[in-house]
Order: sequence, then structure tokens, then C-alpha cells
Amino acid sequence: MYLCNPNFEDDMAQKPSIPKGTRDFGQCEMAERNYIFDTVRSVFRTYGYQQIDTPAMENLSTLLGKYGEEGDKLLFRIQNSGEKAELPPEKGLRYDLTVPFARYVVQHQNEISFPFKRYQIQPVWRADRPQKGRYREFYQCDVDVIGSKSQVNELELVQIVDRVFSLLGVNVLIKINNRKVLTGLAEICGFPERVVDITVAIDKLDKIGLESVEAEMLEKGLTPEAIAVLRPVLLLSGTTEEKIATMRRLFNGGSASGLVSETGMKGVDELKELFGFIGTTGVSQPVEIDLSLARGLNYYTGAIFEVKALDWPIGSICGGGRYDNLTGIFGLPDMSGVGISFGADRIYDVLKGLDKFPKDLGSSTRVLFAVMGSEELRYVLPLAKTLREAGVSVEVYPEAGKLKKQFDYAAKKAIPFISINGSSEIEAGTVNLKNLETGEQKAFQASEMDKILEFLK
Amino acid sequence: MYLCNPNFEDDMAQKPSIPKGTRDFGQCEMAERNYIFDTVRSVFRTYGYQQIDTPAMENLSTLLGKYGEEGDKLLFRIQNSGEKAELPPEKGLRYDLTVPFARYVVQHQNEISFPFKRYQIQPVWRADRPQKGRYREFYQCDVDVIGSKSQVNELELVQIVDRVFSLLGVNVLIKINNRKVLTGLAEICGFPERVVDITVAIDKLDKIGLESVEAEMLEKGLTPEAIAVLRPVLLLSGTTEEKIATMRRLFNGGSASGLVSETGMKGVDELKELFGFIGTTGVSQPVEIDLSLARGLNYYTGAIFEVKALDWPIGSICGGGRYDNLTGIFGLPDMSGVGISFGADRIYDVLKGLDKFPKDLGSSTRVLFAVMGSEELRYVLPLAKTLREAGVSVEVYPEAGKLKKQFDYAAKKAIPFISINGSSEIEAGTVNLKNLETGEQKAFQASEMDKILEFLK
Repeated sequence: MYLCNPNFEDDMAQKPSIPKGTRDFGQCEMAERNYIFDTVRSVFRTYGYQQIDTPAMENLSTLLGKYGEEGDKLLFRIQNSGEKAELPPEKGLRYDLTVPFARYVVQHQNEISFPFKRYQIQPVWRADRPQKGRYREFYQCDVDVIGSKSQVNELELVQIVDRVFSLLGVNVLIKINNRKVLTGLAEICGFPERVVDITVAIDKLDKIGLESVEAEMLEKGLTPEAIAVLRPVLLLSGTTEEKIATMRRLFNGGSASGLVSETGMKGVDELKELFGFIGTTGVSQPVEIDLSLARGLNYYTGAIFEVKALDWPIGSICGGGRYDNLTGIFGLPDMSGVGISFGADRIYDVLKGLDKFPKDLGSSTRVLFAVMGSEELRYVLPLAKTLREAGVSVEVYPEAGKLKKQFDYAAKKAIPFISINGSSEIEAGTVNLKNLETGEQKAFQASEMDKILEFLK
Repeated sequence: MYLCNPNFEDDMAQKPSIPKGTRDFGQCEMAERNYIFDTVRSVFRTYGYQQIDTPAMENLSTLLGKYGEEGDKLLFRIQNSGEKAELPPEKGLRYDLTVPFARYVVQHQNEISFPFKRYQIQPVWRADRPQKGRYREFYQCDVDVIGSKSQVNELELVQIVDRVFSLLGVNVLIKINNRKVLTGLAEICGFPERVVDITVAIDKLDKIGLESVEAEMLEKGLTPEAIAVLRPVLLLSGTTEEKIATMRRLFNGGSASGLVSETGMKGVDELKELFGFIGTTGVSQPVEIDLSLARGLNYYTGAIFEVKALDWPIGSICGGGRYDNLTGIFGLPDMSGVGISFGADRIYDVLKGLDKFPKDLGSSTRVLFAVMGSEELRYVLPLAKTLREAGVSVEVYPEAGKLKKQFDYAAKKAIPFISINGSSEIEAGTVNLKNLETGEQKAFQASEMDKILEFLK
């Protein structure tokens, strides 16, 4: 970079800033964010999912039309460079990780062995109006498998969610719905094309109550007879087995309409199989059927997932589902996939709110060698090197000078040990170490590296 | 995403692609790239450097004018969204990690404790003409310290380079120059304003020889007397101590011009101090003074670094130096910093070329449970869970079916162990494990988890 900018502007120079909706992450926040990423990554790996990366920029032809009209407006478009600068943009920043994944699978289909299990942890960009908790650049952690219709995949995603939040120490509720069940409900009440209206109404049950939901359905054009069919679903309760039995009866001609829904039955079978697997395997966090999950109704075709933190008020912290035709739009039909996305920012807020981050993430440095003069400096440099090669994070204060300043530096960086060595230590070949938390101080022979490492633990 | 795109275009659907100059990274490449990133990160950490992240988008006012006229042209500009779409862009993608770092330091100066040691591993974007080995999106790994003028910082960077390439198993040559020495040379030959011309000419010595270099200097307007002053430098050889002694003599009035250069002396002192520290600490890889290093002449003010792989023909794989006024352009004067940048793509090429990547990076999965039916599936799911909780990466083949297909899957993913269990194993409560490399096969009681873990090691 050129530091002597001829176009130096005074006012700009005074207030450097970043675009609204974007963030800098300092070292503490990074350590905390990496803790989340490392945890999900380690769990993804134990399930055999492998990482891919796709470019930040995709061709606009890849992105447009995939997120609805509103989504198209929220794409960040990149001006063409060179002679084409005046022409309409050809590239945009990725908006999610699902479309790039679908594009990747089609483009690399001959190199991939299916079922293909991948995870991807990368930022996405959306030109949303920035507001509290909503950013224009944020990370997604997506885990998907494509090329298998087995409910074992759904099970694995439930297990992954269960394991991640157990490791993070967060109590969650894993909610599962099935798009085929929703289709079935619309079919047996005689309004097969009204799936979205019906689900959105069910979704409000908790907030506005049964009567208001039924009023809203009437308003939307459903008949009282249709609503009578749906009422047992709105009142659905009991164990998972009981819920499944009720739904099976309704779809099998047992509702007030007497209509049968094959699709609904299929959805119930999927739920039954999935919950059977969950029962066999065992999970630590509660999992329940929730027919009001209304996420992704335009694209999910089977399971729908949502995860809520139980002890912290925030929206869903994970979500996903199954797509039966994930790659069709890029010319590869009949590829069923299922995946889930971890919302890093919300998980961060939950861990922060519940004070669940490990306490020692902040500082990576274990010991600071204070330096009072060039003789002492030369004495500690090889010691620092040996400790580093043993994996200990060590700093040598670079400027010989006042100890006060060096202690302040250690305090601000939360460095737990300080080592101060003067001419007498040099003569004796010893190393002084002080634990700044306990105040304990000890001298070691510089050659007793094992004992030094033990003390620094 | 919406999978039923009304604007579905057939030709687009057939050939999904990514913008030129960008890349997808598949799971093997990602594992290899992560190996490089993890290695540099682990070394950065043992020196007390801590990670920060800055947004992909910066205000154009932050970026413009920092990379010269040519650099301004290579910035990717982002179209404004909403009503401002027609106005000139206000944001651009980051071009390097140095300008965002300087902006970060100024913006967050009150939160930072100096000396501030940070590293940053993120992609940057340049609208360069794509060509072999040159990409429009690539990762930089930068490590910098700001707020200290001590040569201990330069030493640490040399140690970090030394350690990283020792861990990666690559022999390198670390070359060091000093901008003040170059200024001194220009001063004692009577052309103080011609530093760049002189350095660029020296840089060609290896390629075109002494006579041609001197001819080029004459052509550029230097006098024969000036060239006579420079000749001892062009012929500079011997040990580092000898080189330093020769330079000191020249700057101290001992050259043919008899001119003295205070700046040159200062540069020699810095080199002497740095090499003294290097000698005290000890490094594994060779380090040498190279006065022809011509990188960053417009902004470096002290040390200049460059690292070359010794056994693989490629340009420099690391570079950096000291800036005395890193943040002045953003309104914070007198902040000296020194840093180095690891070129991930070139390091990747070197490791690939020298076949230095560890062999077991490709597959993360350790064992595949083959599945022949739903009974067997239910039997292995809890086993898989227990192994995963012990940290083993396990896959359960999700579709019951032909063993051939499942063996093929294990082979393609280089999974070293397969476990096939049928009704007799279920009855006996045993687990069959086969090492696909050695052919060794063993049966264990499902409860003997220790023995199973031992076998899978």
C-alpha cells in the first residue's frame, strides 16, 4: 500500500469506518467465534462430512431467481471491471451456501462420490436493511448430504445438532415437521392448493389461540367443514407415538371429510421411521413433532427442522430440511438432499447471554518474558524459543524498559504468567516465573524444561 | 432457495460455472489448505499473535489511493443497493489485509493494547487478468505487530517463517534487506532521489551480470563516479558479519565519494542487531542479507523480507517489511509496524510439487458401517454414536443394499476400516471390523469399546 496518498482527505482520515451492517471482530470475539466454528466442525467431521469452499462471487445467472423477487433485490452486485464497467453486472456475492452447493454438485458431479456429505462454513452477504442482530455480512455453517433418500440422514442431522449443543452446554428443543404431512392436511380438508395459508395459520396458534386461528382461516377462504377437519390437528398433543397415530388415522380416511391422503401417509411414515431411529440411538436434547414449523415451504419436500434455545429468548438458532430436487435447476434432476444450517451469530448471542464460553479463550499467550535490558533479552530469547517449540504460547516484551508497563501489558492481555530475569538469574542460569493469578513465584534451572512446563500448565 | 424457477433457462441450466479467476475447493484441497492454515495459525499463536477478522467490503474511501493508480483499477466495486443503485459505488472488496489492518487499528485504537500483535487469514479480491497461478480471489495470511520499533519484532517474524517451513518440511532461504541501507547507497553515490532505480538495477545482477547492470545505471542517468561507489555493493559477498562491516565502512565515508550516510548507518545498525538476535536464538533455515530485494520500496522504511523455496522453482512464498507510518493515512501518526504475509497459494504449490502433504489428510472418516437391512441398521446406530463420542469419525451407509456399492464408497473416500454385521453378529452382540489396507479382520464384543478404539487407531 502507498502510505503517502496525494489525495489525502482530512475528514476521511479522522474517521475510518466500515460499511453499515458489517463488523470487525477483535481477538476476543474471534476466539469465541472460532470456539463455535471448531465445535461444529469437529462434530461434522465425526459424521464423515467434509469441507468444501466456494468463491465469494458467483455468476449472477447462478444466483438470480433462486431466492424469489425479494431475494434478487438483496443480492450485492459487483461492477464489471475494465472495458465492461458500463455494462450490467455479471457477478454477485453469494447470498447463502445452498445455491453454491447445488451449483458445485452439478459442476463437479463426475468427481463426487454419492451420497456426498459436505459442510461449508463461509460468510454470505445480503443487502438487507441493517438492524440489531441483522447484518449484511454473516457466517453460515451448513451441513448437507445429497444423493440419499434414507431417513438415516435426517437422524444424523438430529444427532449432530444434539451433539453440538451438548458440547456447547446449551439446552435446546429440536422441532421436526414434514412437508408431506402439511400437504396431506391441505388435501384431507379439501384445499390441496392452500398448504402455505394453512401452515401459516397453524404457526400462529401459540400466539393468538385456537379461535383466532380459525377466524383467520375462514377469512382466507377455508370453509367451516375444512376447519372441522383441521381441528384435531390444531389440538394435536400427547407423545410422539400418539401424535403419529392420530395423524395416520386422519390421513387414512378418519377425518371429518373422510378423504384419504397418500402424501400425508408418506409423511407420517417418514416421521415414524425418523423417530424410531432417534429412539434406537438416543439423544440428549428433547426432540418433538411440531406441525406449525412453516420454514421453507416453497422448497422443502420432506423433513423440516428448527432448533430453539430453551433458556435464552431468541428466534431459531438452526434450521433446515429435505429438498427432493436440490440440483434440478442446474440441470441435474432427481437428487434428493437434506441439510441444516447453524446460525453462528445467534448461537454466539446465546452463549454470550448464558455465559457459556470457556473462560480461557481470551488470551492465547501463556507467559510473558519481561525485558529490562539487552543482556537480559539475549538471555531469554533462546528460552522463549524452546518453550514455543514445546507448544507454549510465549511473548517476549519487545522494548526493554519499565516493568510497570510490561505488567500492564500482561494484565490487559490476561497473560497468566510473567518471567522477570536479571543479572543474578543470568549468572545462576535460572528462570523466574510468577503466576499472576495466585501470586506464586518460583525459580527453575533453565535446563529443567519439564518442571517449567509443568508450572506453566 | 426456490427450486421452481419460472425463468429457468435451459442453456444456463446445462453449464453451471463460476466467475473466471475464482475457484471451488473440494474436500481434498480443503484438507490440504487447512493443513497450511492450521500450521501457520499454530505458530502465530505460540508467538502471542491473535486473530482478527475484518469485513470483505470496505468503504471505497478506505481503499482508494492506497495501492497506486493501477491498484485502484483492480478494486472490485460493489453496486449500491436500493435507491442509490444508480449512484457511483461506495463500497469495494478488500484488496489486501494491510489497509484493513491499518483502518482497524485507527478505528479501535482505544480498545487495543500496544504493541498490538495480530494475524489475519482471509481472502482478498483483485480484478487482475486471470492467468495460471494468478487468481481474482485468494487467501492471505498476514502477521503484523504495530506499536513497537524493536528489532525483536523482526526477529520473531524470522523465527515464525523458520518454524512454519520447518513444520511444513520445506527448505527455504530467508532474505533480508533494509530500506535505510538502500537510501544510504543512493546518498553516498550522490543520487539520493534515485533509490528505486538503483535497487531495481541491483535486483537484476543475478540475471544480467555486473556489466549490464552498470550499463543500465548509466542509461538511467547515473554517473560513472556514482557507479564506482556502488561497485563494492554489487560485489558484496562473504559472511553476514563481513557484509555488515563493508557496508558500515562505505556509509562512514569509506566509499569512493567519501560521502557519509547517517540513514545508511542506521540501516546497518538495524541489520546488525537483527542478525545478532538471530545468532543468539538460532534458526534452522538459512537467513541472508540480500541488498537486491526491491519489494515495497514505496512504503517500507526498515527491514524488507522475502522467502524463497529452495527445492521448488517458484517466486517468493512470503514477503513483508517494516512501515514507520502504517496508520498515518487514517489519522494516527507515528505508529511503526512490521509484518509478513504468507502466500497460501504458492505454498500450496510448493507442498504439492515436493509431495510434502501428510498422506492421511484426504479422508476424515475412519470407519464405515455397511448396512444390509433395517435390523442391522438399528444394531449399528448406537455403536456408531459411541465411537463418535469417543472422537472417531464414523459413517453409517445410509441405504441398506448391495455390499459392492458400499465397498466402492469406502474405497472412493479412502475410508480405512469397514464394519459388516449381520444377524449372527447381532445375536452374539459382536462387531466385525476389517482393515481395508491390510486385510486384517477381527470381531469384538460390542461392549469392548477400548479394544475397538485400539484396533481403529
